[in-house]
Order: sequence, then C-alpha cells, then structure tokens
Amino acid sequence: VRHLGSRLLIAIPGIALAVAVVWAGGVALAALLVVIAVLGLVELHSLTAAARPIRWAGDLCVVLWVVLPLFGSSPSRQLLLGAVACILVSAVGGLTARRREDVTLRVSVTVFGGLYLGLPLAMLMALREGPNGAAAVANVLVGTWAFDTFAYLGGRVWGRTPIAPRTSPNKTVEGAVIGLVGAVACVVLAGLYMDWISLVESIVLAIAICIAAFAGDLFESMLKRDAQVKDSGRILLGHGGILDRFDALLFSAPVAYLVTSWLVG
Amino acid sequence: VRHLGSRLLIAIPGIALAVAVVWAGGVALAALLVVIAVLGLVELHSLTAAARPIRWAGDLCVVLWVVLPLFGSSPSRQLLLGAVACILVSAVGGLTARRREDVTLRVSVTVFGGLYLGLPLAMLMALREGPNGAAAVANVLVGTWAFDTFAYLGGRVWGRTPIAPRTSPNKTVEGAVIGLVGAVACVVLAGLYMDWISLVESIVLAIAICIAAFAGDLFESMLKRDAQVKDSGRILLGHGGILDRFDALLFSAPVAYLVTSWLVG
Repeated sequence: VRHLGSRLLIAIPGIALAVAVVWAGGVALAALLVVIAVLGLVELHSLTAAARPIRWAGDLCVVLWVVLPLFGSSPSRQLLLGAVACILVSAVGGLTARRREDVTLRVSVTVFGGLYLGLPLAMLMALREGPNGAAAVANVLVGTWAFDTFAYLGGRVWGRTPIAPRTSPNKTVEGAVIGLVGAVACVVLAGLYMDWISLVESIVLAIAICIAAFAGDLFESMLKRDAQVKDSGRILLGHGGILDRFDALLFSAPVAYLVTSWLVG
Repeated sequence: VRHLGSRLLIAIPGIALAVAVVWAGGVALAALLVVIAVLGLVELHSLTAAARPIRWAGDLCVVLWVVLPLFGSSPSRQLLLGAVACILVSAVGGLTARRREDVTLRVSVTVFGGLYLGLPLAMLMALREGPNGAAAVANVLVGTWAFDTFAYLGGRVWGRTPIAPRTSPNKTVEGAVIGLVGAVACVVLAGLYMDWISLVESIVLAIAICIAAFAGDLFESMLKRDAQVKDSGRILLGHGGILDRFDALLFSAPVAYLVTSWLVG
C-alpha cells in the first residue's frame, strides 16, 4: 500500500475533524462544507477549463446553496431556492460575461458544477439541520466511507471480475459486494444504537447509499478520464484532491437525504 | 406588425387552451407541460448540438421532474427528487454513452437543459397542486405575458433607450418600464378578485415576476445569439419556437413559486 503513512496522517485527523464538526453542526458545519464546495469547484473548473466556466458564478452558487439551509423554517424550500439561484446566477454570469463566444457552454459547465457540488453538500447541511440531524449525517458518512474502504480492501484481496473496465479498471464485482456487505453492517450497527430508524430501514438506507456511492465514484473517474488526469488535485496528500475524496459522497448524500426524508416523514 | 393574422391564429386558441388546462390541473396540465418541456428540449438540444447533449437523459430528466409533483404528499420534496434525478440520470447517461470524447461537456449541457426546462415547468406543476393552485398559476401566466406584451407594445411606441444592446438590441428602458407597470396592474387586478393574496403581496409578486421574465427573455436571446439563429424553432407559426414563447416563463415560474410559497407559507 503506497503512501500508507501519509494517507493515515491525513485520514485520522480528517475523520476526527468530520466527527467534531458534524456533531457541532450549524455554522461550523456550514463553514467546512463551504470550504469543501469551493475547493472542489476549483478542481472541477480546472478539469473543465477548456469550456471556460464562469468561476465567480459557480462559487456563488455553491456557497449560497450550502449556507441557505441555516436560515428559514423549511430546509426543503431553502434547497429549492438554491436550485433556482444556481440557474439564475449562472444565467447572469453568462449575460455579464465579457467574452460571449460559446457562452452557452460556459453557462452549462457552470450550472453543472453548481449542481454537482452545491446540491449534495447543501443536502448534507439540510439533513444536519433536520430532526436527528447529527445521527442522519453520521449514517451517510459511515455508509459511504465504509463502502469505499471495504470495496477497496476486498477488491485488493479477492478482486477478479472487472465491473466497469472502461471507466475504472481496478474496480471489481467482488470488491463492490464486499463493500456493500461491509457498509450495510456498519450502518446497521450505527443505526441500532440510534433509536430514530428501524433495522430494516437502516438496511434500505445503506443499500441506497452504496449504490449511489458506487455511481459517484465511477462518475468522477469518468470526469478525470475525460480531462486525462489521474487525480483531481493534490491538496490531500496521498488522497488526491477534494473530488477524489468526496466523489462517492456527492451522489450518496442526495440519495440519503431523500431516503431519510421518506423514512422519517 | 408582421404576421399579425397568423400570430392571433395561434395566440387566441393558445390562451384558451392554457386557461382550460390550468383550470383542470392534474394529469391534463402535466401532459401539456411535458409536451412543452420535451419540444423545448428538442430546440435547446439543437441549439447546443455541437456539444452533443445526451438526448434520452435530458428527456427523461424533464419528464420525471414535471410529473413528480403529481405524486406524494410534499411537492417541495418531489421537486428536490427531480433535481437529484437530473444530475443522476445525466451521470448515468454519460457513463453509458458509447462515445466518451468530451463526455463532461455532454453531461454538462444535458444537466443544463434539464435544469433550464425541467425545474420551472415542474414548479408550475407543483404550484398548481398546492393551495389556490389555479389562481397562483394564472397569476404567473398573467404577469409574465402581460409584461411581455406591454413591454413590446410600449417599446414600439415610446422606446428610445436600448437596455441591453449587446444581447437584444430592440429592448428599451421605456418598454421595460411600461411592461412592469402593465404587468403589475394586470396581476393586481387578478389578485384583487382572488382573496388568497393581499394587494401589497400581489404587487411584490408581480415585480418579482417582471424582473425574472425580463432576465429569462434576455437569457434565451443570448442562447440564440450564441448559436447564431434568429428563432429557436418554427413550431408556433409567427411566434417562433417553444423557447421563444416560454423564455420569460422559464425564469418567472421558479421565482413566482418561491415568492408564492413565502407569502402563502
């Protein structure tokens, strides 16, 4: 295992920070999510630099979206306000751009970046602001990162059958199955100690999180492959960039938000 | 006035159809909105053909989004489900695309089309399904089309000062002001006869609708200018294409949805 030392050097304080900030919630969590969103967008805008995203508009979209659930009585309405802001701010970005060549593409990649990073991180914020918020967010993180870890380790030991050779040649069916089983076990364990969700519900939630996490991971691999880079960035020593670390969460968080809101009501 | 005959030939039955279908709501309105969404997306995909949008994914996004508010108890949650579906369906479109060159751009224009057409039309559907739905939707249509008409006529008679010469040389400050005054008057008149909204509230709503409608009109002009076409299509004789007719509504509907949901609670 390459870079194991530096990987742990980042992972352990990273997990501690995540636990503390998810526990604290509120402005502390919003601040961390804003940092992740903006740094992730820097990486995405560099992957899509050829299409010249409108950087200020993208930044404003994701920051607004993440911060909005802190205000107002209805988190879901705040999330919708963020979605409307994403298209309107990007449109104003296009209308006020000095260079108008290919402005439709510029607006499109700006909207895409806003939705890809802003919506999931805003949904994590909204989930934390809801009832049992800390437990609900912890569940998403546990499920996503357990899937990631078990799939990676399981794949290294028993992996034989490529599952998506074109996009991510190292991923295997065996790894994905072990990841799913491991993540379900972790989420069930976490869920059993928190009396807001039943055993069956926590299994449904964990399976949904795993499928989304898997798709999120593949999708980010596709973006990198398209841009012909190996890592989205180098900000997290040995863990690549922000997008490399949060790719699965960008799809699992919105799915978990929806499933949780159906389960809890 | 060019094509006055054929314009009225479309406008009068068009308005009658809109009134009947907004009144009926439910499946009838969803069907009309699906038709508008899909035909609008055909035009948008042809404007952005060079970036090769993933057509089936875009179609699925807008159809899902528009239809979702018919189901479930919470329209705002259904709208969020549509937003999540927009990014996930587009991602799956990218991952399953046969040709992967510039797949990030393909996904981006697909997401953009989904959000630009799907979100506003889904919000109109959700508005109709809410309390006082027919009145709320009628208010948006009256405000948007009154603004459009008064701004056009006022601009022709008194227009002198270009307001956005780079994007839309025929639009004038005088036209916009007359449009605003005319639209506020129409919305107030409509609001006074419907006792779910106060006078001040209907003025606020109308002003918000006008600003958004103006931006929506400019934005679509920018898209056409970028693609170097004059009309987005020719499906509506003398009215150009679907996007030409609904451009203002695509921005005014989401803004009206948010303002209405704040006002009504």
